[in-house]
Amino acid sequence: MEKEKILTAYKKLRKQVKKGCYTNENTLLLGEIYLSSLNFLKKMKRVTLISKVQNKSYFAFTSNDQLSRAVNQDLFMPDYSKWEQLRNGMEINDITSLSNNEIQKILYSMAVSFCASIDLIKKRDQKTPGTFFEYFIAYFFSWRVGVEPRKYIQLLNIDAIEKKLPTDFIFNLGKNQKKFHLPVKISTRERAIMLWAHQRLIDGVYGSSRFIGTPVIMTETKTSQSKKEVIEICLPEQWMLYQNFIAQLKRIYYLDLPEAYKNLDKKSPSLIVKPFSEFFEEWQRL
Amino acid sequence: MEKEKILTAYKKLRKQVKKGCYTNENTLLLGEIYLSSLNFLKKMKRVTLISKVQNKSYFAFTSNDQLSRAVNQDLFMPDYSKWEQLRNGMEINDITSLSNNEIQKILYSMAVSFCASIDLIKKRDQKTPGTFFEYFIAYFFSWRVGVEPRKYIQLLNIDAIEKKLPTDFIFNLGKNQKKFHLPVKISTRERAIMLWAHQRLIDGVYGSSRFIGTPVIMTETKTSQSKKEVIEICLPEQWMLYQNFIAQLKRIYYLDLPEAYKNLDKKSPSLIVKPFSEFFEEWQRL
Repeated sequence: MEKEKILTAYKKLRKQVKKGCYTNENTLLLGEIYLSSLNFLKKMKRVTLISKVQNKSYFAFTSNDQLSRAVNQDLFMPDYSKWEQLRNGMEINDITSLSNNEIQKILYSMAVSFCASIDLIKKRDQKTPGTFFEYFIAYFFSWRVGVEPRKYIQLLNIDAIEKKLPTDFIFNLGKNQKKFHLPVKISTRERAIMLWAHQRLIDGVYGSSRFIGTPVIMTETKTSQSKKEVIEICLPEQWMLYQNFIAQLKRIYYLDLPEAYKNLDKKSPSLIVKPFSEFFEEWQRL
Repeated sequence: MEKEKILTAYKKLRKQVKKGCYTNENTLLLGEIYLSSLNFLKKMKRVTLISKVQNKSYFAFTSNDQLSRAVNQDLFMPDYSKWEQLRNGMEINDITSLSNNEIQKILYSMAVSFCASIDLIKKRDQKTPGTFFEYFIAYFFSWRVGVEPRKYIQLLNIDAIEKKLPTDFIFNLGKNQKKFHLPVKISTRERAIMLWAHQRLIDGVYGSSRFIGTPVIMTETKTSQSKKEVIEICLPEQWMLYQNFIAQLKRIYYLDLPEAYKNLDKKSPSLIVKPFSEFFEEWQRL
């Protein structure tokens, strides 16, 4: 059954990521997970959700009274061959045969199809989608920047004890080279302040902006199971304060970019929130 | 039925808090909630939990296969008359007839008995206990410092637009007087960094330590329903980094103080974590 295929491939992925994020094994496993998820979801009914999000339409998959998370109608492109095209491009280090918009749709479709499948296979499992999404994003990030991440930073304590602090993904491109701080979240909603707080901590240890903060978030939607309604929870004014008073994040990337965050780059201090696909072409200028 | 009594009194409390935190109505309602919760729990079975927390024993209430949160055996003192004694003391502004230890037990018992009741009455309702606990702590805090809290701060933006930022409780004792920043949480676990981040934000707007940060947390325990096991999730090393690099919290108060946080005041920079009952005698020295 597709269900077992998804879970088995995911289990293997969890083991493999210990050996590295961007590896041949993971390329195969992500493909397997995507294909099984698409086949699994193909058999499920779709319910159109009442969208309280301007200019965006959402649906959910449903099975046995369970409802999946909201899926963005425009971004969902369940076409496996597009992933093959992206994968082949990544192998030769040239993905320009795909537009940013197409890349965004491929990434969104891969991430949401696994998460929506888990919503229907398991009950109230938040952890599996969250963990998957972390390694999913780290896979693409790692490919692009060409190094593997760590999940800790070294601390040089004044009290002389050298310690490791567990963190989000850290990509260190080498001595005097760029260093990225990559938190990955399914959504942040009222917990977004944590992104800035972690950046501040790393700034505190290593100096302001030594590490370039580039969080990647999937979406800020929230689905009401009973009302079959989807809303987007955004706090743009608070975000500007965080950017002002806590730390500076260089970019915030989304797979399903909320309208409310699109124009924060026109404010001061500017905060640039973009589709994640744009990272692939702009990363060297960050 | 007791169940209805608890819910009705809670509903009234939610309305009343809009008029103020420390009021005669709330005194009556908190008493009603406590008494109904004790009567409700009296009829429930108790299950001893496997405690992975050193030197602490926990049990849970159970009904129809549902298990309540963990209750600290030593702190739970289901004696309504003790609350009456505290309440009478508060009325004449003298609670010295009770020891700190007794006050701690009264507060813990009141808070945990409502939360445990809700665990059995509702399914997976995190919001009701969280909201109750906020107003419960604000009630005692407000009594002690003699002013009512606000839940926002005024921002003076350089771009001239005056705005309100929603916050945790803010107690402003007056011009040139102490100002407290009181976040209230059932538990913080891996989200504790938010306490420091909010303090930093307020420091940023008003200047370092203009507002005295004194979060109050109930407990850091986590109960496994299936294993009937209770653990405590503490991150003392991370906390020291937050205190070092994000902001300075003056105190962190607990109703069920974790062992791992007791001795952080011996480190540098010191972080003083204490039973909440001690606030009542030390608040003027903060």
